[in-house]
Amino acid sequence: MFRRCSNTGKWGADDELGTLNYVTPEKRTAAARLVRTGAIVSIGRDISHAASKVDPHPVHLMVTYGNGPGISDFFTMAPHGMTITHLDALSHFSFDDLLYNGRNRSDTMTAAGARWGSIHAMREGIFTRGVLLDVAAARGVPWYEPNEYVTVADFEAAERRQNVRVASGDALLVRTGMERMEQERGVQDIYPRAGFHAECAEWMHQREVAIYGGDCIEKLPYPSERFPSAMHMIALASMGLPILDWPALTELGEICSREERWDFLFATAPMRLPGGTSAPVNPLCLF
Amino acid sequence: MFRRCSNTGKWGADDELGTLNYVTPEKRTAAARLVRTGAIVSIGRDISHAASKVDPHPVHLMVTYGNGPGISDFFTMAPHGMTITHLDALSHFSFDDLLYNGRNRSDTMTAAGARWGSIHAMREGIFTRGVLLDVAAARGVPWYEPNEYVTVADFEAAERRQNVRVASGDALLVRTGMERMEQERGVQDIYPRAGFHAECAEWMHQREVAIYGGDCIEKLPYPSERFPSAMHMIALASMGLPILDWPALTELGEICSREERWDFLFATAPMRLPGGTSAPVNPLCLF
Amino acid sequence: MFRRCSNTGKWGADDELGTLNYVTPEKRTAAARLVRTGAIVSIGRDISHAASKVDPHPVHLMVTYGNGPGISDFFTMAPHGMTITHLDALSHFSFDDLLYNGRNRSDTMTAAGARWGSIHAMREGIFTRGVLLDVAAARGVPWYEPNEYVTVADFEAAERRQNVRVASGDALLVRTGMERMEQERGVQDIYPRAGFHAECAEWMHQREVAIYGGDCIEKLPYPSERFPSAMHMIALASMGLPILDWPALTELGEICSREERWDFLFATAPMRLPGGTSAPVNPLCLF
Amino acid sequence: MFRRCSNTGKWGADDELGTLNYVTPEKRTAAARLVRTGAIVSIGRDISHAASKVDPHPVHLMVTYGNGPGISDFFTMAPHGMTITHLDALSHFSFDDLLYNGRNRSDTMTAAGARWGSIHAMREGIFTRGVLLDVAAARGVPWYEPNEYVTVADFEAAERRQNVRVASGDALLVRTGMERMEQERGVQDIYPRAGFHAECAEWMHQREVAIYGGDCIEKLPYPSERFPSAMHMIALASMGLPILDWPALTELGEICSREERWDFLFATAPMRLPGGTSAPVNPLCLF
Repeated sequence: MFRRCSNTGKWGADDELGTLNYVTPEKRTAAARLVRTGAIVSIGRDISHAASKVDPHPVHLMVTYGNGPGISDFFTMAPHGMTITHLDALSHFSFDDLLYNGRNRSDTMTAAGARWGSIHAMREGIFTRGVLLDVAAARGVPWYEPNEYVTVADFEAAERRQNVRVASGDALLVRTGMERMEQERGVQDIYPRAGFHAECAEWMHQREVAIYGGDCIEKLPYPSERFPSAMHMIALASMGLPILDWPALTELGEICSREERWDFLFATAPMRLPGGTSAPVNPLCLF
Repeated sequence: MFRRCSNTGKWGADDELGTLNYVTPEKRTAAARLVRTGAIVSIGRDISHAASKVDPHPVHLMVTYGNGPGISDFFTMAPHGMTITHLDALSHFSFDDLLYNGRNRSDTMTAAGARWGSIHAMREGIFTRGVLLDVAAARGVPWYEPNEYVTVADFEAAERRQNVRVASGDALLVRTGMERMEQERGVQDIYPRAGFHAECAEWMHQREVAIYGGDCIEKLPYPSERFPSAMHMIALASMGLPILDWPALTELGEICSREERWDFLFATAPMRLPGGTSAPVNPLCLF
Repeated sequence: MFRRCSNTGKWGADDELGTLNYVTPEKRTAAARLVRTGAIVSIGRDISHAASKVDPHPVHLMVTYGNGPGISDFFTMAPHGMTITHLDALSHFSFDDLLYNGRNRSDTMTAAGARWGSIHAMREGIFTRGVLLDVAAARGVPWYEPNEYVTVADFEAAERRQNVRVASGDALLVRTGMERMEQERGVQDIYPRAGFHAECAEWMHQREVAIYGGDCIEKLPYPSERFPSAMHMIALASMGLPILDWPALTELGEICSREERWDFLFATAPMRLPGGTSAPVNPLCLF
Repeated sequence: MFRRCSNTGKWGADDELGTLNYVTPEKRTAAARLVRTGAIVSIGRDISHAASKVDPHPVHLMVTYGNGPGISDFFTMAPHGMTITHLDALSHFSFDDLLYNGRNRSDTMTAAGARWGSIHAMREGIFTRGVLLDVAAARGVPWYEPNEYVTVADFEAAERRQNVRVASGDALLVRTGMERMEQERGVQDIYPRAGFHAECAEWMHQREVAIYGGDCIEKLPYPSERFPSAMHMIALASMGLPILDWPALTELGEICSREERWDFLFATAPMRLPGGTSAPVNPLCLF
């Protein structure tokens, strides 16, 4: 599957954008036309200053103010994990020593950051059509239980129910209801969690999805010795598909349901941090 | 002038958005229609890992990678200053003890962040028409020298030359050429720097600008004991006008010149950090 | 009491050492002679990487290792509070605007650190006789309950029981059993906690204690509007007595009991951080 | 040489202390007796807040103070390198995958710290006899030039000149004058630097040195493919000899010269940071 989904060489040997190449100027222009009412919703999560069982080192913000009129900030952040809405750079995961586009992790990584495929590669931003697939609603459940998989059949059931089709260059957002579950049951352990079956990666490859974001990613633990992190390893390292990790989708789902519209303009951009393998983001969806 | 430009109470006693209230759903819809070719340009600056004379504590990014396939990031950041493209929250500056909308700094600030008027107030993002005024071009100079002021006359000369008019809810971007000057002369000292005469704040108030960003802000030092930071103190603390601090405008200026278009879609959103008085951003401009 | 205990001007207008001036070369030489068996015990606490209810932002340590042989560290730390064994600089607390030796906090502090009275003032270290007063043992209780005060009578009862006398230049360590209580009951809230009655400060002043450390400091909350932090405000800001905050005293107490010796060599030194108002330390006691 | 100098298994399979085992209670008692005048000198360097060419990310200290009487600190630090006086944990360097006492780096290291051989192993501190060898004075030069080696002959010449002998359990401090050179010439590049020939490691092994500290360590670059960091790789990974990296020795050298005494009490202790591969320290020397 690593080979079947591979986009190695597809956009040239130096390409660092991966599936973001599917977002053409025409795609952007068409996406802008999806803005009809001007309603706007952010799908970033509020950043917590408190530790939790999945986040031992929350953001530490310190603000200082002296005798002058100005106030200064200083903060520390570790974006990866299940707390902060962030973009994963293509170099965030490898399969053995392989990164996207045939690069090697051992040649690419330094303690000061990634020499290639860092978040800086996405500096011109992501501005495209977004589509939300509400697979929980399609399955008729409030949320997926931790032992369940999201499958291709679920994706296609949601497409039929919503009368929408995921197309080349789209930002695909998938809602399994995990956010709602955590609101009711409290923060869950890292393991086990509902998430994608690896076949979903292949489906995204065929549909030419540009970026994926969802309230779940992996099925954790994934029962594979070769692919313990099936989605991260195939999406990032084989397809070159960036992951929007840990967005908030409850409010977006409510708006889509109410408006009976499942596509919209999706816009975000990571800070231009050379070498970073992630960046906190706050993506906007416009209707 | 602090009183003349004040928007205290204009949008209610609890308002934390200030002039971002000028960005209505209609304004957003009209802004999206400005996307015609799909060309996109980021106006964030590359974040430097190296110290400079205006930045003693650059971002420290550390990346770690062990035996597993994943790579983690940890970084520290102090966004204010002349290095990182960032948004200033309305609580970033006070005039004496006064913050925007009649709040007091002493009641608002804690070491852990601002209780009110933090960057979190802008969590739904800024999506509106952007207008670039190239005052350096209008004046026929490559850049403003450090002892010069930007004046209202300069703004209006640029409007005439470019055949554009700054309107209610716009993101106003002003290019004085300082970025180009620093490319040629190297990083300048904090003092002296070209920047706005305080009358510019009043002009923005009359035009109902929603957000200001430029390669200059203050005239530094500003020769006023009452207003040592005229723009920050009036824009943030009186008008409630957020400042986009330290954007990159050279490439944007070139595109505008080439396309003979000075308005475009402007889109950005700060990370949702409660209490922060700033956030790094990477705004997008679409044509 | 602030005035009665004041050492303002006692060692000159520029003095930043406060009661550490009581530690003379003769005192150091005599202290070294207390080392008879060579037994050594550290009274620093293990630094936790996990958040707790009194420590929302624990140390974040990140270690990175690439293809080379070396490994690098990067960490963040906020030493003040009830987690990390640390020294308080004399500028850590003020009484109104007053700091030790007649300085003003508003003139002394900047966001980048204290201009005067910082931890850097103690850069030559503290090497003196240490005395442990086990007031819990003297009172015959396993620990002081949160609503109880430590009093001068308790100090003197411990002196009598232990047949020891606190003298000029000593490092005074006081054990109330709070560490043992937290081992049994778990981490306690910040309020209420057992701690010193303000009269204890005056006693330390009379005895010319050089530095105080204990498993308690303040009675929290202290029922005084003028002195909500009686010990910090009098010890640091009036007497110029540095505080060793949050040492571990259980093992030290056991050794003292077993050896029937309550004085020993005490040695520590803060890192030489200009401007800091604290530093993590790991003091050594030798028998 | 890695094998010849190895202390693997010497103090048991679980030993994490290495050559600190040479410091016995008797050694500590004898060391305390070296305190005769009570003179004290710190050999930590002042921590700089400014970047330099060997230190792109200096300590960032932020101090905050609100309306209450207390002041808080928050800082970030990366102790390794040529800026901060620090202790190297035994796990800081490997030879291939080998760490001290037969451990493997790949099993030992995690992004959150070392599972074994961390700085926490030295939590009971180092209190022993210190000996300064002033090899620059013995050679009759103000400093070693960057292309020069320190050799065993230099060590023994200094012993003869100073009439002192390095013995089992000593803290060996070596002064090549590099600190003085940098005071006159400014901060030097990382390469080239004067430093030890690998034979010096073997000499320290024979003499049973407990800890080494000096104003130089490696000859950089070291002309060996197998041992690019000869001292770090042999001292830490084979001998289990901790390194005191980057102490200040100019003032200590002046005192030793003036007093005609080259041994003294040496005392330091790292903060008790589990997992850390370093800790900032401020060692004390007493005469």
